[in-house]
Amino acid sequence: MQTSKKIRIAVDAMGGDYAPEEVVKGSIHAVRELGVEIILVGAKMKIEQELKKLDTAGLPVSIVDAPDVIANEEQPAYAVFRKPNSSVVIATRLVKEGKADAAMSAGSTGACMVSALQYLGALPGIERPIAGGAFLQIAPKTVVMDLGANVGSQPHHLVNYAVAGIAFSKCFLGVTDPTVALLNVGAEEGKGDDLAKEAYKLLKNSGMNFIGNVEGMDIPLGKANVVVCDGFVGNVMVKLCEGLGQMLSRWLGKELKDKVAPDILEDVSRKLYRTISPALVMGGGPLLGVNGVFAKAHGSSKAVQVVGTLKTVKQAVESGFVNIFREELEKVQKKSSN
Amino acid sequence: MQTSKKIRIAVDAMGGDYAPEEVVKGSIHAVRELGVEIILVGAKMKIEQELKKLDTAGLPVSIVDAPDVIANEEQPAYAVFRKPNSSVVIATRLVKEGKADAAMSAGSTGACMVSALQYLGALPGIERPIAGGAFLQIAPKTVVMDLGANVGSQPHHLVNYAVAGIAFSKCFLGVTDPTVALLNVGAEEGKGDDLAKEAYKLLKNSGMNFIGNVEGMDIPLGKANVVVCDGFVGNVMVKLCEGLGQMLSRWLGKELKDKVAPDILEDVSRKLYRTISPALVMGGGPLLGVNGVFAKAHGSSKAVQVVGTLKTVKQAVESGFVNIFREELEKVQKKSSN
Repeated sequence: MQTSKKIRIAVDAMGGDYAPEEVVKGSIHAVRELGVEIILVGAKMKIEQELKKLDTAGLPVSIVDAPDVIANEEQPAYAVFRKPNSSVVIATRLVKEGKADAAMSAGSTGACMVSALQYLGALPGIERPIAGGAFLQIAPKTVVMDLGANVGSQPHHLVNYAVAGIAFSKCFLGVTDPTVALLNVGAEEGKGDDLAKEAYKLLKNSGMNFIGNVEGMDIPLGKANVVVCDGFVGNVMVKLCEGLGQMLSRWLGKELKDKVAPDILEDVSRKLYRTISPALVMGGGPLLGVNGVFAKAHGSSKAVQVVGTLKTVKQAVESGFVNIFREELEKVQKKSSN
Repeated sequence: MQTSKKIRIAVDAMGGDYAPEEVVKGSIHAVRELGVEIILVGAKMKIEQELKKLDTAGLPVSIVDAPDVIANEEQPAYAVFRKPNSSVVIATRLVKEGKADAAMSAGSTGACMVSALQYLGALPGIERPIAGGAFLQIAPKTVVMDLGANVGSQPHHLVNYAVAGIAFSKCFLGVTDPTVALLNVGAEEGKGDDLAKEAYKLLKNSGMNFIGNVEGMDIPLGKANVVVCDGFVGNVMVKLCEGLGQMLSRWLGKELKDKVAPDILEDVSRKLYRTISPALVMGGGPLLGVNGVFAKAHGSSKAVQVVGTLKTVKQAVESGFVNIFREELEKVQKKSSN
């Protein structure tokens, strides 16, 4: 921990389907590729075994022992409470105590959320983390919030999703003044269900760069930088695209068989799948709305996905994501209390 | 009207962007291709002018004069009331009076709905027509209900959408015992928002072939014959696919440029668009839940789309769609009153 300028990330080495091996490997890659410092949190001996397989001489990597692990099937709130020495909790506490700038885990989503909320807290006005990000490769500057973490939203929640999207656009996509739109069934004001009608009014008066309603087609067309909707709709869209990606790449394979060179066909089918499949694009990233940087990687992450998630962690810390999110929330809250 | 065995369809010759020319032309094609009898309803002289351009000698085509037309911008309920001699109203009344077996219009959707509900009525328990049909060409035996006509549904509405889907599957897709599923954010019972949780219970006890929750990916994968959801989600999905179709066919064009013969590339790009774009697949069809066959064609229909819609009209009449829908509704209503 000598190079104090480097960003220090506490990594839960025990969480994830391929932990500790792939998580440790990915962490070491990240040290080299991203120039970050890594604190591996977990069963010390197991981590040391993994480190021995790798060349880590002179790298800013340390270990913090954590004897307990929270399994996927445990009830998250109870497990976090009962196991204060689990790897995910200790990683989170290192952030809380200022010993790390950020934490990352590929373990149980529930345990990550509970641990992050309990030890780091939520930003003012946020009840629980928001899921979202750039939705499609073909519309790289369009983020959709929420994508399934929050189902049954109230109108004011959609305003928070919009703020999350603004902070995300600014910090991760380099958009200066993101446009915000409400996902709806028609372009005109007054369209939609009760949630959409009420959320429209709130967004209109929020002081954001609100451009009104957009419809489903406007997401791939990239009509707005931030599109907000309840997590039910968002989740259905993500998964619909996943299914379409699978079916269409198969369809294309059949359609172009014997018409295109096999290697070109394989390549374009794979790209088509990636182009349309949001989960693959998103990889992993910070829990949005937590008062600190805590990133969740997919449970199935291998070393390359761990590096990908750690890259977003570095971006979040460097861009001051949490502070920008807090400032944007304060702007909206001040505006709405007027 | 001599050949009494032929199915008699009253066509609103004045409704639609290309009326009367394309509607009359499509109707005459339908007489030849489908073996139906057509009653053209509208301004007699204009229709006669159109018929003169075509070879109609000996065909079972007649005209019923209707001096009024309802424009798209008119308030539907008021217009239908004020203009009982409009083409859409007279076409509907011909069905009511037993002078036609079915009606079709490419005119104002609102006027079609109001006219159909006022003169033919709704099936017992149905409050307003349901929008839906086979959603994607890659899953040809999967219908989704509702696709946007009904936003802000109550749980019991979703049961009606399921019944509409069952009748649709049986009559239009030849599925004997359609499986029914609830679109949700997870597979397990108890997932979702309040609507999904309550609808799950009702569907489970409805006596239908209910297979539980499905998620977004299961629609393109064709996991159920009938997928029910609120029209907000359905509408977003339809339009998302439309947008994806546009963007992906463009994307494919760029990706394969100079790698595939131009004619093959153009062909596969067009097919990709059609494969994913639900609106194009659906064309037009009967208003689901009306006590009689009244089909709405897209406003932008040309002759070929008019023929397509008239084909679904013929299928609806021949398969006894309205009676099957009514019987399925009665089954569910009897079961739920037990």
